[in-house]
Amino acid sequence: MNNNQLVECVPNFSEGRRPEVVEAIVDCFRGKKGVKLLDYSCDTDHNRMVITAAGQPGAMKAAVVDAIGVAVERIDLRQHQGVHPRLGAADVIPFIPLRNMTMQEAVVLAKEVGHAAAERFGLPVYLYEAAATASHRTNLADVRKGGFEGLALKMQDQAWQPDFGPSQPHPTAGATIIGARPFLIAYNILLNSNDLDAAKAIAKAIRFSSGGLPACKALGLRLDTQEKVQVSINLTDITQTTLPQVFDAVCMEAATRGISVAGSELIGLMPLQALVDTTAHYLKLDDFSIDRVLEHTLWE
Amino acid sequence: MNNNQLVECVPNFSEGRRPEVVEAIVDCFRGKKGVKLLDYSCDTDHNRMVITAAGQPGAMKAAVVDAIGVAVERIDLRQHQGVHPRLGAADVIPFIPLRNMTMQEAVVLAKEVGHAAAERFGLPVYLYEAAATASHRTNLADVRKGGFEGLALKMQDQAWQPDFGPSQPHPTAGATIIGARPFLIAYNILLNSNDLDAAKAIAKAIRFSSGGLPACKALGLRLDTQEKVQVSINLTDITQTTLPQVFDAVCMEAATRGISVAGSELIGLMPLQALVDTTAHYLKLDDFSIDRVLEHTLWE
Repeated sequence: MNNNQLVECVPNFSEGRRPEVVEAIVDCFRGKKGVKLLDYSCDTDHNRMVITAAGQPGAMKAAVVDAIGVAVERIDLRQHQGVHPRLGAADVIPFIPLRNMTMQEAVVLAKEVGHAAAERFGLPVYLYEAAATASHRTNLADVRKGGFEGLALKMQDQAWQPDFGPSQPHPTAGATIIGARPFLIAYNILLNSNDLDAAKAIAKAIRFSSGGLPACKALGLRLDTQEKVQVSINLTDITQTTLPQVFDAVCMEAATRGISVAGSELIGLMPLQALVDTTAHYLKLDDFSIDRVLEHTLWE
Repeated sequence: MNNNQLVECVPNFSEGRRPEVVEAIVDCFRGKKGVKLLDYSCDTDHNRMVITAAGQPGAMKAAVVDAIGVAVERIDLRQHQGVHPRLGAADVIPFIPLRNMTMQEAVVLAKEVGHAAAERFGLPVYLYEAAATASHRTNLADVRKGGFEGLALKMQDQAWQPDFGPSQPHPTAGATIIGARPFLIAYNILLNSNDLDAAKAIAKAIRFSSGGLPACKALGLRLDTQEKVQVSINLTDITQTTLPQVFDAVCMEAATRGISVAGSELIGLMPLQALVDTTAHYLKLDDFSIDRVLEHTLWE
């Protein structure tokens, strides 16, 4: 692999409440040669953290395997509660090729990390998205279905044998889902409402799997700390559905139910193109493109 | 001056209709070592062109003086018509410090260019904004007041002697206004209306000089090619007034007059921060900042 390759990793861990555990996991990405920690955020309601890091594939692999080790050691899913679905302590670990790297090379990296994590920590590992080894394992929601609590039963099914590691859950850390995929925007819209059914109905209306917007995944969730419900969104391809299209669709679906949008939040990072789309849409800008952004033209 | 200094120059020339003249001027910024042509655009109604270039101060100086020479040679303001106010063929030439450069160093560069243009082309030059030599010459609109047609009379006034060059207008090229200033967003909002008085009233309502938004300059103009009027805006400091604030203010002022906004256009470039402001505003994004833009974190 050449040294100019750049891969992003956005691992999700099932810990968003204990700062000492959060910091121990984040530390695996700090001050490592060849790895840059770009962002991390915790959600208390989700009881979940998301790290965004970019770097060289080899250095990233070492950092991620270390972080999985910390999660396995410090998180006990038997004690874990949170509104976000999860299968394991180190729940989902996607690799995203950013520069001089093919999706196939990101798949190889995902498999190397999965193999190492299974060997070192006795962890069952499922490969998903571009790394999936069967079509029914491609979609994250399908792999995660049943959650940690249903995992032992699920793993008795021949169709759900892991790609690496033992064929029963790790007793405290469940299983880990590792894969490769294109860049994704993780984005939550908070509603001025406590009506979980409404949030679920709005999510259903906008997500592609139930006839909504292309490349849009969505869940309705309750946030106990805010006494508000939210629509939690993954936008997997902004060339198919833009961020303002998603926001406007949620506003419209909410309005028909007499609900207004309180605000929204981005998890991790968004690409410049998403800001270009949003700016052009709301300012009704003609002929606007990424080439009109000063920093982009300078950095190009 | 150190080699890592980066200055932007956004020269405005009074030619937006004859492609061969436009290209001859733009060519001064093409393929020059140390200068990068970032953008250029022509407006037929304004009969004006705006170039955006960035580069090293010395290389930029040479390119800009060449371009002034082409404008003086090829543009005859006695034949020039357009809706945008102008004083000269090479009308306004601002230098904007971008990196490793102080405003005072940009002022020195503006003065060097003004001196050279006056010497080489017999052109009167006024210094404005941070380069102004008297407070009444700071504001571009004041320096340009009266236009090319009123320049001979204006220059008889002791208060309007040029900073460089002869004390009468260049017969065909008028005078040139050169200065240094912070980054500015040039932005036009097109109205679904042919009512010039309405466009002027909206411009007056939003511009700072008549009690409107801080750091906002605005003019109401008629665009003959579109049979629509526009509000032509300069936003000189987006930390004081953001782009969405300006857009919403124009929409509101227009709505009270029964007019809707047809669209908007950016002249030149906008800084990433303007896209961040716009995205955060319309998506109601909490905790959003430039550090959440993928490319920014990578390029930093």
